[in-house]
Amino acid sequence: MNRLYHFALSPFCRKVRLTLAEKRIEVELVEERYWEPSQEFLRRNPAGKVPILRMDGRVLSESQAICEFIEETNPNPQLMPRDPDTRYEVRRLCAWFDDKFHEEVTSKLLYERVNKKVMKLGYPDSKNVKAGAQAIKYHLDYLAWLLDQRRWLAGDQMTLADFAAAAHLSCLDYISDVDWNRSATVKDWYAKIKSRPSFRTLLVDQVPGFPPPRHYADLDF
Amino acid sequence: MNRLYHFALSPFCRKVRLTLAEKRIEVELVEERYWEPSQEFLRRNPAGKVPILRMDGRVLSESQAICEFIEETNPNPQLMPRDPDTRYEVRRLCAWFDDKFHEEVTSKLLYERVNKKVMKLGYPDSKNVKAGAQAIKYHLDYLAWLLDQRRWLAGDQMTLADFAAAAHLSCLDYISDVDWNRSATVKDWYAKIKSRPSFRTLLVDQVPGFPPPRHYADLDF
Repeated sequence: MNRLYHFALSPFCRKVRLTLAEKRIEVELVEERYWEPSQEFLRRNPAGKVPILRMDGRVLSESQAICEFIEETNPNPQLMPRDPDTRYEVRRLCAWFDDKFHEEVTSKLLYERVNKKVMKLGYPDSKNVKAGAQAIKYHLDYLAWLLDQRRWLAGDQMTLADFAAAAHLSCLDYISDVDWNRSATVKDWYAKIKSRPSFRTLLVDQVPGFPPPRHYADLDF
Repeated sequence: MNRLYHFALSPFCRKVRLTLAEKRIEVELVEERYWEPSQEFLRRNPAGKVPILRMDGRVLSESQAICEFIEETNPNPQLMPRDPDTRYEVRRLCAWFDDKFHEEVTSKLLYERVNKKVMKLGYPDSKNVKAGAQAIKYHLDYLAWLLDQRRWLAGDQMTLADFAAAAHLSCLDYISDVDWNRSATVKDWYAKIKSRPSFRTLLVDQVPGFPPPRHYADLDF
């Protein structure tokens, strides 16, 4: 049986989970407290991070490398278009969310509010929280700008870029940090992706001590 | 004419420069003080980062997305192998260097010693420098371990993974922060990649106020 070592509110794990679920690849989810790594976990992954995917005798790390591997070995349904220009755009946007958005928003809001408490690292730094709350507005506007020109983030087809973005936003939505009223276009896009069967397991995730708001799992939010 | 907006000691720019040079794609290099971005620069790249590649009417950002695009549109010489397992390994290692090594070593040594001064952000934080000097040992050992099993980092063929690693190490070598005596295997690998014609322009780069040590450009170091 395939296994994914993950943490419920890790956007990188969520991107991999969405990719696996779209391709109907079954995995057993194993919650990993990666900030208190066991010797066994470090042996599997010297980088000490999640996600780690154990699949067909392989042990895979680094979410983007994992997603591209899954895509190349299980091409249906297609999550990477064929033409180099759109492939570039998918990769650029994945990096945009996994680097820039992660640095400016996810780490400032989610990690301050949730991860710090779970990892017993103290209280949220209000300066960071404020900076994250400001930065997410600019990113939502950027999403809206992209979606005004395209059906999905990287073009007319749903791709890994949509999963990267939705993975981060779903984690932030779990702590009510996304203002869905800011852009109807972005809300429509998120409603579309949220209603996919692949999204279901994400919406039932719970982190002890942090109940999600009611709208989180609601498809008509 | 193609143009690459870059900073001489940015490992991400160096990875792209190596990729372009291996494929014999000529570019004009434009030094960009990205920490004092001009309006024109921000219009080209809302992420405000280097490298930015202007090529055939496109404006491309995010180093890994750029390298994969160059590879897909200019497949010779091949820098990404064909089989999904090795492609995964190339991408995993690029992420290893561009994320983990960057975080633990490059940002702690190069950014403290050089970038801080160039950007007028004050003096190096000795705690960071110490942590970086410690961490690079562990990474060099990891490289040695990989190279004991393989000719190149991801397998028997030179790939983007070698360029990602060499890009970081060459920046650190510019400030004498790589102990080449730690592993003969790693030194041999670096000598091989350093002697490639694609490496030449990197070795003549100079950052004002930071003359490189004599061994830096020496192919027999």
